[in-house]
Amino acid sequence: MKDSQKTLRDKKEKIETYLASLPRGEQDLLHDSMAYSLNGGGKRLRPALFLITAELYGDDGAKLMPFAAAIEMIHTYSLIHDDLPAMDNDAYRRGRLTNHKVYGEAQAILAGDGLLTEAFWLMASLKADYPAERVVSAIALAGDLAGIGGMVRGQTADVAAEGKALSLDELKAIHNDKTASLIRLSLMSAAILVGADAADIEKLSAYGLSLGLAFQIVDDILDHESTFEELGKPIGSDEEQGKTTYITLLGAEGARKAAREAAEAAMAAAAALSVEADVLVDLAESLLHRRK
Amino acid sequence: MKDSQKTLRDKKEKIETYLASLPRGEQDLLHDSMAYSLNGGGKRLRPALFLITAELYGDDGAKLMPFAAAIEMIHTYSLIHDDLPAMDNDAYRRGRLTNHKVYGEAQAILAGDGLLTEAFWLMASLKADYPAERVVSAIALAGDLAGIGGMVRGQTADVAAEGKALSLDELKAIHNDKTASLIRLSLMSAAILVGADAADIEKLSAYGLSLGLAFQIVDDILDHESTFEELGKPIGSDEEQGKTTYITLLGAEGARKAAREAAEAAMAAAAALSVEADVLVDLAESLLHRRK
Repeated sequence: MKDSQKTLRDKKEKIETYLASLPRGEQDLLHDSMAYSLNGGGKRLRPALFLITAELYGDDGAKLMPFAAAIEMIHTYSLIHDDLPAMDNDAYRRGRLTNHKVYGEAQAILAGDGLLTEAFWLMASLKADYPAERVVSAIALAGDLAGIGGMVRGQTADVAAEGKALSLDELKAIHNDKTASLIRLSLMSAAILVGADAADIEKLSAYGLSLGLAFQIVDDILDHESTFEELGKPIGSDEEQGKTTYITLLGAEGARKAAREAAEAAMAAAAALSVEADVLVDLAESLLHRRK
Repeated sequence: MKDSQKTLRDKKEKIETYLASLPRGEQDLLHDSMAYSLNGGGKRLRPALFLITAELYGDDGAKLMPFAAAIEMIHTYSLIHDDLPAMDNDAYRRGRLTNHKVYGEAQAILAGDGLLTEAFWLMASLKADYPAERVVSAIALAGDLAGIGGMVRGQTADVAAEGKALSLDELKAIHNDKTASLIRLSLMSAAILVGADAADIEKLSAYGLSLGLAFQIVDDILDHESTFEELGKPIGSDEEQGKTTYITLLGAEGARKAAREAAEAAMAAAAALSVEADVLVDLAESLLHRRK
């Protein structure tokens, strides 16, 4: 069994170094407002999954960094817009002031727009090193899963669900769209770019769906149990706002069981890949033990 | 001399029909909020320029419609975000309520995010009919000109300039980024997709820069002179807000002269193309006479 935590740390380090050089261009207000959130820490789970997947197929990721960064940019833009007063109205994210608290609402909207657009520029820049067919396919997948075929659809459902009680199926659908979509994108786009076959890409999609679900359930558990210092944001805020969570639906014990089942489904999908993927198996297992 | 107005009307009709089928997927809240602004009229100048340019090189545009629609989606998202309370706080656009007045701020932000992301999905969908290398190049250009290399940069400068007096150079720089970038994208991406040579692509870039400038100056003139009924939005609002415009810098007569000079520069660039482009020449000329 590979130690996925060490692998994640290694990838995170590479990603942090690369992200620190972004975005390109002058260090003006737009640059600073984008860089503030992009370089504000975080687990870097999505780009790490992207690089780990590429490595499964023998690609060391050196020339894939723009795409890895693009995925993190999409994730970051979604957090900036999510935190806005009109949306979740959050003042803190990862223990720091949110973008609009530092740069104002107008600039935070634009920083998000800039990150989302720049993400596609970065993806397209891979044409120098990878077959254009694969690059376009990966971009198409990003346009779908980050947008109306995934993340933005989930965000819309989440906003519409505010103050309403959700069923387990409704909650899962929102999380599949909001959280699992970008995780699936990370895994699948790497496989597309390095030329993996369609069967493996499907298995990575299934892995990402289950991993995303496990991740979100663990998030709810942590929101319920952690301290501000551990998590870097206010605790129990979801429940206080009357949001349906896996805790409110299943209770703490039921949520832990559901997280384990989702992690096991992910592990099975990873084990079925045509390549050895112990690191993905271990990662799904270790997700259950994360503290933030 | 070709009648560019008839050509524009023909293209607009095709575009309207195509846009009415978008976005793909279920007719849910996200779909409706995106479609509301996408199908809210407008000149469709950008996708029309895109189709006109493709036609100069012998492409009838039938399989280019997704890309034409993508450009209009980017334009539309920028208007939705621009109209938000945190930005220009506009209640009307093209004589209709703005997106956030109908769907609320949160959904308007998401409708914009959805349109921007879907635009890249649509662009990438061209891989079925055009060489992948060209499609990726066109996407890279869109990622640059719609983002930190163009439109979003201009939007940032525009917000930052609020309440400040601008020099003519500063005002031009903002308009080049805010307005001319998408016009250049429309012309250049069509040329890239149909395989035009690099020299023509550069000339189209120059044409777009001058046309965009002329367009913006005429906008300022119309904002100064028109009625609500003609324009579909409040009149003189820029000047009332203390914004620097070509009118405040050059006066009405000076602005008309500057518009003419810009249009003539555009006409010269179009005339220098390797293909007959009378329609672009006529379009630059007729821009000076538009009433809305």
